[in-house]
Amino acid sequence: MRPNRLRQIWQDGGAAVNGWLQLPHGFAAEVMAAQGWDSLTVDMQHGPVGYDVALTMLQALSSSNATPLARVPWNEPGIIMKMLDAGCYGIICPMVSTPEEAQRFVGACRYPPKGYRSFGPTRVSFYAGSDYAQHANDTVIALAMIETAQAIDNLDAILDTPGLDGVYIGPADLAQGLGYQERVDPKHPDLVALLDRIHEGCSRRGLITGIHVASVEYARGVIDKGFQFVTVLSDGRLLAAAAKHAVDRIKGVVAEEGKAAGPY
Amino acid sequence: MRPNRLRQIWQDGGAAVNGWLQLPHGFAAEVMAAQGWDSLTVDMQHGPVGYDVALTMLQALSSSNATPLARVPWNEPGIIMKMLDAGCYGIICPMVSTPEEAQRFVGACRYPPKGYRSFGPTRVSFYAGSDYAQHANDTVIALAMIETAQAIDNLDAILDTPGLDGVYIGPADLAQGLGYQERVDPKHPDLVALLDRIHEGCSRRGLITGIHVASVEYARGVIDKGFQFVTVLSDGRLLAAAAKHAVDRIKGVVAEEGKAAGPY
Amino acid sequence: MRPNRLRQIWQDGGAAVNGWLQLPHGFAAEVMAAQGWDSLTVDMQHGPVGYDVALTMLQALSSSNATPLARVPWNEPGIIMKMLDAGCYGIICPMVSTPEEAQRFVGACRYPPKGYRSFGPTRVSFYAGSDYAQHANDTVIALAMIETAQAIDNLDAILDTPGLDGVYIGPADLAQGLGYQERVDPKHPDLVALLDRIHEGCSRRGLITGIHVASVEYARGVIDKGFQFVTVLSDGRLLAAAAKHAVDRIKGVVAEEGKAAGPY
Amino acid sequence: MRPNRLRQIWQDGGAAVNGWLQLPHGFAAEVMAAQGWDSLTVDMQHGPVGYDVALTMLQALSSSNATPLARVPWNEPGIIMKMLDAGCYGIICPMVSTPEEAQRFVGACRYPPKGYRSFGPTRVSFYAGSDYAQHANDTVIALAMIETAQAIDNLDAILDTPGLDGVYIGPADLAQGLGYQERVDPKHPDLVALLDRIHEGCSRRGLITGIHVASVEYARGVIDKGFQFVTVLSDGRLLAAAAKHAVDRIKGVVAEEGKAAGPY
Amino acid sequence: MRPNRLRQIWQDGGAAVNGWLQLPHGFAAEVMAAQGWDSLTVDMQHGPVGYDVALTMLQALSSSNATPLARVPWNEPGIIMKMLDAGCYGIICPMVSTPEEAQRFVGACRYPPKGYRSFGPTRVSFYAGSDYAQHANDTVIALAMIETAQAIDNLDAILDTPGLDGVYIGPADLAQGLGYQERVDPKHPDLVALLDRIHEGCSRRGLITGIHVASVEYARGVIDKGFQFVTVLSDGRLLAAAAKHAVDRIKGVVAEEGKAAGPY
Amino acid sequence: MRPNRLRQIWQDGGAAVNGWLQLPHGFAAEVMAAQGWDSLTVDMQHGPVGYDVALTMLQALSSSNATPLARVPWNEPGIIMKMLDAGCYGIICPMVSTPEEAQRFVGACRYPPKGYRSFGPTRVSFYAGSDYAQHANDTVIALAMIETAQAIDNLDAILDTPGLDGVYIGPADLAQGLGYQERVDPKHPDLVALLDRIHEGCSRRGLITGIHVASVEYARGVIDKGFQFVTVLSDGRLLAAAAKHAVDRIKGVVAEEGKAAGPY
Repeated sequence: MRPNRLRQIWQDGGAAVNGWLQLPHGFAAEVMAAQGWDSLTVDMQHGPVGYDVALTMLQALSSSNATPLARVPWNEPGIIMKMLDAGCYGIICPMVSTPEEAQRFVGACRYPPKGYRSFGPTRVSFYAGSDYAQHANDTVIALAMIETAQAIDNLDAILDTPGLDGVYIGPADLAQGLGYQERVDPKHPDLVALLDRIHEGCSRRGLITGIHVASVEYARGVIDKGFQFVTVLSDGRLLAAAAKHAVDRIKGVVAEEGKAAGPY
Repeated sequence: MRPNRLRQIWQDGGAAVNGWLQLPHGFAAEVMAAQGWDSLTVDMQHGPVGYDVALTMLQALSSSNATPLARVPWNEPGIIMKMLDAGCYGIICPMVSTPEEAQRFVGACRYPPKGYRSFGPTRVSFYAGSDYAQHANDTVIALAMIETAQAIDNLDAILDTPGLDGVYIGPADLAQGLGYQERVDPKHPDLVALLDRIHEGCSRRGLITGIHVASVEYARGVIDKGFQFVTVLSDGRLLAAAAKHAVDRIKGVVAEEGKAAGPY
Repeated sequence: MRPNRLRQIWQDGGAAVNGWLQLPHGFAAEVMAAQGWDSLTVDMQHGPVGYDVALTMLQALSSSNATPLARVPWNEPGIIMKMLDAGCYGIICPMVSTPEEAQRFVGACRYPPKGYRSFGPTRVSFYAGSDYAQHANDTVIALAMIETAQAIDNLDAILDTPGLDGVYIGPADLAQGLGYQERVDPKHPDLVALLDRIHEGCSRRGLITGIHVASVEYARGVIDKGFQFVTVLSDGRLLAAAAKHAVDRIKGVVAEEGKAAGPY
Repeated sequence: MRPNRLRQIWQDGGAAVNGWLQLPHGFAAEVMAAQGWDSLTVDMQHGPVGYDVALTMLQALSSSNATPLARVPWNEPGIIMKMLDAGCYGIICPMVSTPEEAQRFVGACRYPPKGYRSFGPTRVSFYAGSDYAQHANDTVIALAMIETAQAIDNLDAILDTPGLDGVYIGPADLAQGLGYQERVDPKHPDLVALLDRIHEGCSRRGLITGIHVASVEYARGVIDKGFQFVTVLSDGRLLAAAAKHAVDRIKGVVAEEGKAAGPY
Repeated sequence: MRPNRLRQIWQDGGAAVNGWLQLPHGFAAEVMAAQGWDSLTVDMQHGPVGYDVALTMLQALSSSNATPLARVPWNEPGIIMKMLDAGCYGIICPMVSTPEEAQRFVGACRYPPKGYRSFGPTRVSFYAGSDYAQHANDTVIALAMIETAQAIDNLDAILDTPGLDGVYIGPADLAQGLGYQERVDPKHPDLVALLDRIHEGCSRRGLITGIHVASVEYARGVIDKGFQFVTVLSDGRLLAAAAKHAVDRIKGVVAEEGKAAGPY
Repeated sequence: MRPNRLRQIWQDGGAAVNGWLQLPHGFAAEVMAAQGWDSLTVDMQHGPVGYDVALTMLQALSSSNATPLARVPWNEPGIIMKMLDAGCYGIICPMVSTPEEAQRFVGACRYPPKGYRSFGPTRVSFYAGSDYAQHANDTVIALAMIETAQAIDNLDAILDTPGLDGVYIGPADLAQGLGYQERVDPKHPDLVALLDRIHEGCSRRGLITGIHVASVEYARGVIDKGFQFVTVLSDGRLLAAAAKHAVDRIKGVVAEEGKAAGPY
């Protein structure tokens, strides 16, 4: 079976740099796949991507080395299982706020007796190999998004969920849910302390800590802290920044290159 | 009728900065449309875009101020007219090498008696307004690509084509066709002289000179020379550069920001 | 931020005439958008429209003044939030029968602390403007469908749901659920009394009353009663009626124009 | 083999009422197919319909009795043959102006020795039956559009083309090409005389005369003259008229029903 | 109203042979529809099929005699009702493990007072006829998948669900859930006994027993036992087996025809 | 650059077994790609496949070892170049009947100075590698279909076309064009002699002879004669045969397995 590159990176003690796919076409996915990301996540929650398009994006990703993941729209077993059958090697689930929700999520990612995933690896068997069924439970990654006040209250219970591989922090929702003004790359001491606390809880249990960031600097900072999975912006945001920078420089809005290179 | 912004820019003596759409989805088009381009060209020749998708891209562009254009796959009246009916305010036609080809191209863009475009502005009437038919011949822009050795031989005859609005230079094909090694942003004196000669021929006749470039610097250079229409890279190339830059910097492949900002 | 035209109409004491989109393509949406509707609702429940197509319809609608809404297939947060992120300025939710369901629905439409909507206005920011996040909670309209016997039992409790903007009456389901034979434009005194009772409950709380009707006459009647949001038929039904009328008249099945103008 | 309903109508001396499909989805096609049209034409020239969508429209039409036709974007054998293989029982070809063009068009619709159509009835065999190959040449209808000044000059030579089944008049292009202001339902004596002359030329040779009209009255008029194939408006135009009429009447813009029933 | 062929077969005491559609395009569905299956099920759970594509598959199936069904991704009313409105004459629901789940499933398939299906037979009325609403509750088939250990525990209670038409056994999930190694065509005595027990429970109540099998022999075996609904493999599996067999025989990997005909 | 597996097979003196893709979705392509074909051809002529879908099929094929080819709808440079840019390593061109047509076809496949292909390897560079441009002319395969009486008359002149890699025989068109009744796997001595003559002409010039066949036996026969490229049936035909065989055997229409294995 084709190995999960993320698991290999993590076993080697490394941090994975994840790309975020919101442009809904396989060609955009191929462009991203050629740039060196360790994994690529099809964002079906806030990205304008439905199932029929997500499928073609996963097909386009299959010839790259980047591990394919999906963020599902909601903690709903139907779409989680569909994305796994479509070829994802991991699922990021939004808005996991209670241990029950965490169990429901993780169970959807695991075949019995570890979970309640239904058997039918229709497309993923072509991607992974014919022995997918034997190894799926050890290969598929389940990351719960910690991004609500309720999740913070239930943090330890969520992290104790058997089979959970780690958490993915959504800073915008988390800050909003806790009443802070920051949306990305939080610097408020309370929020920084909270991220550290989450990471500490993960580390203690051997879980992965992941986070969505909006700048290279913040990415490096959390990696230095020991986070093992970091996403920077998204394909659409990267495109916007690069395009705006090019237009502004041609039009003379921006005079010097170094000054306005954008957030990435 | 909604005016053609490009014609307004040109009447004011300005140069238009054009974006190039090869990512085949309307959401990618919307991302580009928000970055300040004066016009956006759906590339149906080398971009992986067929008609059914190009249509949805034009629909997504209609709420922006950027003038929508298309580069068609070939000098073929069926697709030229379909793209005009779909809402394009201009057509870039590849590989125009003879005055007959130029006439065939321009004629497809003009209603009788100026051309042989068939009447049926099905979607464009929603974009342009109900008086589209009266103004279409004066609104639609026809740019012939000059990119073959044969086109250079026939340059004056092509530029004399009635109704032609200007030329669009494809440096890669032109250099290859003439036997030079350069592909983008040509600096070889022969090629630079050739670009100047094309521009001089256009200027003398009141035609627009356009060109595809791969860097901000080259874009500024040709604008300084008087070119009035310049495209830099494409959405896919901008995305690739921005993504690679972000990954490399996070992974420490690139240490300093200024050094490897990519081609744009 | 682009204002919500429906809220403006309602603040001026007017009634909005809403179009219903079941033809699953952006071009059909553009045809409808040019006919003077105040708002247009993509019907994802009974209309044959899935997410990937709904997205392109919303893109096609963005250049019109009609406010874009969606009726979601079910009271499920994943699709409600996806449609808001895709550009809808309001959601019509079917089959809201209890105050808990109403809260679950309204909460999905509101960012914290008013609700539990997740943050990521990926496409809607292009439609609304970059200040969308600040104004979203006051802009997005949440209309609960009242169409079951249970909803009638719980009417006051549903209408008391904080953040609910109004109700949308589905006469077919409501009549069926209560055991009446009428499907559209109910005239049975019990049903008329029920509509009045719903409207009275809304008016008392400053909520909007909306309804789906099948004729111009019924539309005018409910507007005269004070309903502020009325949908007549759907694009598919209007097309069917117009086409049948044309065919019948050409074939001589219908002799006089006035007699068989169809239900609208 | 499933018979061609149009040929049956014509053999019985009748006139066929044809619907025009420009809304690019099979569901819109199904709505139209249920309204009594004798045939339905997928308009790939001025309708915003590409091949991949046209295919699904033909599939949706296959359960109806209406004969499926296509108007191709241009007189190009690739798309003509693709549409026949996809299930069309007839092709309307735009802008046929010379006998050579007519032969090129008709030849693309006929298997050798009558033409040069390539063999591969992949989908049409499911629609037509397994004996399609034997009967295709006698079943497929080839209608050349007469809509240019040049076509009028060459009228007799075009009509003499072996295998041609008839002509389809495009009044808008024809009037424009000849310098008249009228676009639809021409009433200028010169144009009326021209239509009569075309029809006379067809009748003499046993060919069908078809035309695109914009009103029921004009349709009846040409049928009374002996035209055997008439299209009124299009799905999009019918939808627009019905929707505008409904909105205007609800809003009180139009007071009385009979007055503003629109063009159909 | 168009009758449900499956109900007719069952009333005559016959067994229906069902095809399984996982290739996500209407043309693949048409190929399958021409091969003699009594019904065809669009598999939206393990098949890579989302709603927008499933719709076009159902349209393509409408001209065949095979009854269209869908297996939905999960027991969720939104998608169940959407598929019924899209034209399905029956729903197979995965992972029904409790009587509450069975009621929730069956209720979504039935209009009040028998269930809570919402009224809006938008497309299915074209397929079924204009009297669909009157007959829908008696026409639509609801089959619950029995495939978990919990379902076995609750077997009698599930089978007692009013309105349930029968069960569909998923052998792979069932074996996995009970801890057996077999995935298809179970031969272990415990599993065979379990299938017999399920069938006995169905027969006693006049319910249909259906099952997914992987070979013609197993299909015949269960039909001999009295099962009335059997699916063999899927379109993708049949294609794979036929293609591999052809390649292997051409390449000489397989010498004799009879030996390696694959599982079907 | 990723090598062209077909060229490797041919250099080793082998024959390639080619699969034929007419089912218009990438998942069907993936199913086929896993069965051992040396190459897979997207059939855009008689297969119901347009560009936008063909693109996604090529993306799905990129993770397999099978060389991707396309048969284009017609000898038209626009679509030939689009398919090469989309990732095809070879083009099969229908209906090549004269040396001029052959030159036009081959020229579209080759960059200057060998041809007139336009430069812009947008997607193929991801598939092939960044050095695609240097090797493209030596990698891309150009196969002309010999399938008309005129082509037989011009056989030697066609085969002398510089840059042509070989021919692909379409037996159905060829037999039809010459007036024979056979459609597939021709056994008439005249046709067999003609195939031999074509093959002899190819062999003498070092060109490849390819052919479309309908049975394993015929495939083996032509390979024994020295043909180096053979296609058997298509995905749709293989699926149909396998499905019909399964249904018939379950229903008892076919009693014994060996008897009715279908044409493959």
